[in-house]
Amino acid sequence: MRTDELGHHYSRQFNEELETLRSNVLEMGGLVEEQLRRALRALVKGDSDLGEQVVEDDFRVNRMEVSIDEECSQIIARRQPTAGDLRLILTIIKTITDLERVGDEAEKIGFLSSRLASQDRPENRYKELKHLGRAVRDLLHRALDCLARLDAETALVVAREDALVDEEYESIMRQSITVMMEDPRTIGRVLDTLWVARALERIGDHAVNICEYVVYLVHGKDIRHLGDEDRVVEEIASNE
Amino acid sequence: MRTDELGHHYSRQFNEELETLRSNVLEMGGLVEEQLRRALRALVKGDSDLGEQVVEDDFRVNRMEVSIDEECSQIIARRQPTAGDLRLILTIIKTITDLERVGDEAEKIGFLSSRLASQDRPENRYKELKHLGRAVRDLLHRALDCLARLDAETALVVAREDALVDEEYESIMRQSITVMMEDPRTIGRVLDTLWVARALERIGDHAVNICEYVVYLVHGKDIRHLGDEDRVVEEIASNE
Repeated sequence: MRTDELGHHYSRQFNEELETLRSNVLEMGGLVEEQLRRALRALVKGDSDLGEQVVEDDFRVNRMEVSIDEECSQIIARRQPTAGDLRLILTIIKTITDLERVGDEAEKIGFLSSRLASQDRPENRYKELKHLGRAVRDLLHRALDCLARLDAETALVVAREDALVDEEYESIMRQSITVMMEDPRTIGRVLDTLWVARALERIGDHAVNICEYVVYLVHGKDIRHLGDEDRVVEEIASNE
Repeated sequence: MRTDELGHHYSRQFNEELETLRSNVLEMGGLVEEQLRRALRALVKGDSDLGEQVVEDDFRVNRMEVSIDEECSQIIARRQPTAGDLRLILTIIKTITDLERVGDEAEKIGFLSSRLASQDRPENRYKELKHLGRAVRDLLHRALDCLARLDAETALVVAREDALVDEEYESIMRQSITVMMEDPRTIGRVLDTLWVARALERIGDHAVNICEYVVYLVHGKDIRHLGDEDRVVEEIASNE
């Protein structure tokens, strides 16, 4: 399905409304990505002020969620969309919920970074977290890109790559336990870094959710929870 | 708004469809509550099999989510609801997403309980977690009850009580750090109990989300992120 086939609009105006909606969601996505980028920068640079700024700015993300959600309800009530158009709007309603929660996780990372900034940073400057953070940002960015381009094939690939994020998270977890056992005085600080890792891992999950919505939107198939995405890839391939 | 005023249905059949939808959501809620109850029982009793059973049964929750979600899309497409009916359906779409994630957290607790069962249980039999678990189950149950009875006033009260859950969670966190520092050999096990506490805290957040949806449904006001629910209570009171 291509963008221009998304529905059978009975008016150019409706088409424009849907385009505005989509661009608003992508704008919200951009804001959330920026929040995450700054939260990670605050961590790596030990910049307490920046961390606090991220916390303060979370309201912008929340405000966008409420406003887009309202827009979606109004469009459904006014235009009574069906098929592809309705799927697009329902996809957007779900996507912004996930984006808002990514914003919450970024806020959490901002808060933790701010708190960690008052303590000695480890010699490696949180190299593992930086690495995990980059992987997660990449995942989120590509998930949003799939939504922008309605690219279900890539969405399936991106969804699968979350496994790498989970592996990195598990590895950070194991390392952290070793560090804490060797020097129990570090427990408070290391736990804070573990919460950062956990927040990043969750953001990866939200990116996967967005990818799954894109597949649903494009193919009208709900692939959530199938537990075997290969089957869906094959099915889609065999339908083409 | 009372249940029977929820919309201006042009057909008795539509009314019945909405009732079925609502009762399906409450059934899903009941299933999720049961999963949580069993996961906590597995923890407290050190019952590894029960923990694994909870993990295995999560697919039931997921299946219900997909099926109700599909039902909602179909009703919107076929009935083209507006106003209160549309709000009800959008509320349900959001609620089942939260319930599915509560199911995921229960699954996580089941998994951790199963893993913890192979280790010595602490003398107090996870008293604090048991207590936190009871508080969270109560919160979730009451949130679902508010949805069943479309009781926005109680929903606001329940949403506020999540602060108590957060306090208990913070207290468990502090105690855990002390325990780990005193005996670093416990770190692995204590971290597992911390993840249980974290999962419970998250379930509390999902219960709050459901409460907020109920307020939106009943009053058509989006109270999410206002950060000051008292203001909404006053506003609602002054409108009556």
